[in-house]
Amino acid sequence: MTAWRLDLQYDGTDFHGWARQPGLRTVQAEVEAALSTVLREAVRLRVAGRTDAGVHAWGQVASFDTTSAVAAAIAPRRLLLSLNSLLPQDVAVTAVSPAPAGFNARAARARTYRYRVWHGVPCPVRERRYAWQVRGALDAAALEEAAALFVGRRDWAACTASAHLYHHCVREVTSAAWRRGEGGCCDDAAEVPQTPGDAGSGLLRFEITASGFLHTMVRIAVGTMVDVAQGRMTCADVEAALASGERRRMGQTAPARGLALIRVAY
Amino acid sequence: MTAWRLDLQYDGTDFHGWARQPGLRTVQAEVEAALSTVLREAVRLRVAGRTDAGVHAWGQVASFDTTSAVAAAIAPRRLLLSLNSLLPQDVAVTAVSPAPAGFNARAARARTYRYRVWHGVPCPVRERRYAWQVRGALDAAALEEAAALFVGRRDWAACTASAHLYHHCVREVTSAAWRRGEGGCCDDAAEVPQTPGDAGSGLLRFEITASGFLHTMVRIAVGTMVDVAQGRMTCADVEAALASGERRRMGQTAPARGLALIRVAY
Repeated sequence: MTAWRLDLQYDGTDFHGWARQPGLRTVQAEVEAALSTVLREAVRLRVAGRTDAGVHAWGQVASFDTTSAVAAAIAPRRLLLSLNSLLPQDVAVTAVSPAPAGFNARAARARTYRYRVWHGVPCPVRERRYAWQVRGALDAAALEEAAALFVGRRDWAACTASAHLYHHCVREVTSAAWRRGEGGCCDDAAEVPQTPGDAGSGLLRFEITASGFLHTMVRIAVGTMVDVAQGRMTCADVEAALASGERRRMGQTAPARGLALIRVAY
Repeated sequence: MTAWRLDLQYDGTDFHGWARQPGLRTVQAEVEAALSTVLREAVRLRVAGRTDAGVHAWGQVASFDTTSAVAAAIAPRRLLLSLNSLLPQDVAVTAVSPAPAGFNARAARARTYRYRVWHGVPCPVRERRYAWQVRGALDAAALEEAAALFVGRRDWAACTASAHLYHHCVREVTSAAWRRGEGGCCDDAAEVPQTPGDAGSGLLRFEITASGFLHTMVRIAVGTMVDVAQGRMTCADVEAALASGERRRMGQTAPARGLALIRVAY
């Protein structure tokens, strides 16, 4: 039995999320199918972040154990090329490596998600798959103030509609902060007219790192911060909502397209 | 009668090119439909670059003349917002401005196209809509040497399969050069594992500026340069092919997805 680590990227737009579901196109099913073809053995993946439908991953990590004779003989580089030749255009294996016995991708020490918001119009075309287009002005100072409320070790039950699924909702968020983007989605940004409208328009990025996340936690946090930045809630409202543990007291849920898992640490 | 200028962006993936064609989804048809709705008058656009199916534009310019009473009264900013609210996700108007009487977007002094090539595997997922994935090694010095052959004022009939459609094929190419990309498609590039394989893999960008281009001229130039960089042709072969005016003596045609119109000058 040998353990392997896969580093993965995917554009979540056309997937029903990571986790295998009967009859639906999922990342797990695609990657497991490719692995099973190459290794000539059924493979079941574990993953660091079970992303939802529409959520992207640029730094996902998965692992599997195998007794396959092919796996024992194949060079990692060869396995990488074979998998990518079988995978569809919107998912890629970026690295394949033998892992220490017992390695389990789920046992990550920390995960980092990034959420991208475009505010003001028009939103550059290339941003639209990877950003939430927010209408109206955003108060950047309020966003930053609200972000501080999402740092720390506490019960985050208010940030999920699925609290009942968890043993408990205590997670440690080690950082949560906004920064203004320099340019847009593409390296060509400097030459693309991006913000010919409002002086206050542009790309904002939120990054959050935690030991673990609850279902839709980042999207509820972002939606709530945007509500604060547009005057529909105050930071005091958010603090009270978090303390209550009640989802209904928090703000809106930000759409999946702006979210990406960007880093996993072990 | 007033003249207007539109600056446009579009992701060409799901369009059958710029030019209106019965029964097909084209950029021209989408933008004209939105304009006609807002201005309550049929509008016919002229354009700087009639891009082919699958080709992108990040700096397209179009123009139209109108006698619409709405156009006479509307603020350009209002027109911009109205158009974008009607347009699909893969096309955006980035600027709307009244133009000098007689302004015709077709009468551009120069157009600049960019072609993006990813060589080596795996290609980052976010590059795949906007780059040609070339298998195998590319000789960067040979690419640059070949690029020099595509500069100058001459007959470029060898660079199109449609030479018979033109009066003559003389065009002036004022610059044509490759450069290595710094990072990938996205601003997040630094945090995305991009090239865990070949040291020689990565993004290459070719930019070419000319008074005008023939049909598929840039794609044939790029395909031919890649043939040179992979040893299937020599620069002498290319020079001879160009001198012959025969398309069949040139190299392959690079795919549409790597190409984008990025700049127009008047």
